[in-house]
Amino acid sequence: MKEIQNRKRILTGDRPTGKLHIGHLIGSIQNRVKLQNEYETFVEIANIQGFTDNVNNPKKIRESVYELLCDYYACGIDFEKSYVFVQSEVPEIDEIFIYLSNFTTIQKIKHNPTIKTELVQKGFSESTPLGFFLYPVHQAADILSVNADLVPVGKDQLPMIEDAREIAKKFNSTYGGDVLNLPEALLGTSVNVPGIDGAEKMGKSLGNCIYLSDSEEELKEKVFKVYTDPNRVHASNPGRVEGNVAFTYHDFFNDDKKEVEEMKRRYREGNIKDVEVKQRLFEVMNEKLKPIRERRIEAEEKKQELLDSALESSLKVSKIARETADAMKEVMLLNFK
Amino acid sequence: MKEIQNRKRILTGDRPTGKLHIGHLIGSIQNRVKLQNEYETFVEIANIQGFTDNVNNPKKIRESVYELLCDYYACGIDFEKSYVFVQSEVPEIDEIFIYLSNFTTIQKIKHNPTIKTELVQKGFSESTPLGFFLYPVHQAADILSVNADLVPVGKDQLPMIEDAREIAKKFNSTYGGDVLNLPEALLGTSVNVPGIDGAEKMGKSLGNCIYLSDSEEELKEKVFKVYTDPNRVHASNPGRVEGNVAFTYHDFFNDDKKEVEEMKRRYREGNIKDVEVKQRLFEVMNEKLKPIRERRIEAEEKKQELLDSALESSLKVSKIARETADAMKEVMLLNFK
Repeated sequence: MKEIQNRKRILTGDRPTGKLHIGHLIGSIQNRVKLQNEYETFVEIANIQGFTDNVNNPKKIRESVYELLCDYYACGIDFEKSYVFVQSEVPEIDEIFIYLSNFTTIQKIKHNPTIKTELVQKGFSESTPLGFFLYPVHQAADILSVNADLVPVGKDQLPMIEDAREIAKKFNSTYGGDVLNLPEALLGTSVNVPGIDGAEKMGKSLGNCIYLSDSEEELKEKVFKVYTDPNRVHASNPGRVEGNVAFTYHDFFNDDKKEVEEMKRRYREGNIKDVEVKQRLFEVMNEKLKPIRERRIEAEEKKQELLDSALESSLKVSKIARETADAMKEVMLLNFK
Repeated sequence: MKEIQNRKRILTGDRPTGKLHIGHLIGSIQNRVKLQNEYETFVEIANIQGFTDNVNNPKKIRESVYELLCDYYACGIDFEKSYVFVQSEVPEIDEIFIYLSNFTTIQKIKHNPTIKTELVQKGFSESTPLGFFLYPVHQAADILSVNADLVPVGKDQLPMIEDAREIAKKFNSTYGGDVLNLPEALLGTSVNVPGIDGAEKMGKSLGNCIYLSDSEEELKEKVFKVYTDPNRVHASNPGRVEGNVAFTYHDFFNDDKKEVEEMKRRYREGNIKDVEVKQRLFEVMNEKLKPIRERRIEAEEKKQELLDSALESSLKVSKIARETADAMKEVMLLNFK
């Protein structure tokens, strides 16, 4: 499957900084599982970029590499179809990063909306680690090194793709030719999965995640704690469905849309108990997550095998990136041999 | 010679952005020629860093690599004693740079005096190419990748060594052990050679250089144009010796210190013509520069051989840097194989 020619190439991936939760599943992984059948798919475990805000925690990064491998496998990323690879095994990305670094400015990076937001979030405003600051350009190097045609992103990540395109264009126009492939965004429907506490996003540090690795008991416990309508004290009170996480999750996981509409109607009328909505939610979620959970246990048992497969794919990526770097060197007149 | 063990290791080098002039000879190259007998010497042709302010001129960088090779050979850098290597052949430096990048901040780089000065000089204040901004940290990667013990520098470059030490210390203390060798500055007597026009420094763009590759005729012409005392209109006027480039050069090139003192005395008294001082200067300079000029012609004829030797040394450096990178990866728990 991997070797079928003439398919467009996709690059996607995650930083290994924890286990995946249902936000990842709904937001990106499900989509990748579909994409791998249509595109030549590269899935990067971006462990070098993981260090940019975890410099003191190499153990976490390393363990999360294994967690990601298991999560990917569990969700249906097919290691025979997709090239799952480990960033630290492809040092050519760092080399390409350096060649690209002359084609952007620090002023430009500072205006990158992601960097702008995260500088504040991570408390890096006064003292910004260089590695963190370089991150968007290093991402451009990821994309350009494998000649990705498409990068699946949400709307908020569009500026990152735009920056990568701009850098590639400048490189190409400076040295002539079209050494670097101009990537395009593959814009998915932006999906945001709120935390069980009603917070806008799930986050490990917020303790509001449902992990793919959670047991049935953990799932049940979390589902029954899910944020609903705080003003509804009794089941006979009319309740709010909007911002009610139980119903948001129903929308994501319950395929019986009629049932969901019916429950929403009854909820608005004060004609259904929270516990009934949640019990049903647990059932539909468990139905979807159970096979993933089971495959994840299977994955845990063969994680060394998964790593070996990822290392093999990394070799392939390393070769592609070497070719890109050499092509760049040639037009930069750095070919001495 | 190269293989003698237990000698301390030195890293030095130049960016290939033009031919070398007598400022380089007096300021650093003469010293290196001595050092190569005492130390295991690595001389880097920093062509990747050459791009940081010459992004549009790959041809200049490439040609300057050959010029540097010839200049080195002409001055007595012995390719059998010193490892003269080409930066672009050692991509491990870029990889090590990325690992180091989490151990400094953009605020810290902004306070680097060299960066501060050059931002203004090069007109980069408003729009600072990332590659240029990274330059001091990339230099730290140069130094640390080969485990240099000593780096010969002038006083103005001390902050660069201090930064490299600090980054190395932070890396070592974060991951335990002493993977990175802490480099020290080998402080030479700071020598500044003014331009023939009396400007503080020689600079290609200022058109005030005497190049090592200049012919005897070019040397003579330039020596006779040298800035002396602009207020002295006739040889019988008492003249100034301070700031008088003819005498500064005499101090550098004329070994007969008594003769120089005698000429200075007569100059101050208005008892010697400029032309006499200059004719003598031409003679002593030509005596020193003639053998260099001749060896340079020899070098031009075998520059491919010199490049091949540098490429061989680059392989050796690449191996050392690979070992450094692997040792870093091990303590960062990035060793998957």
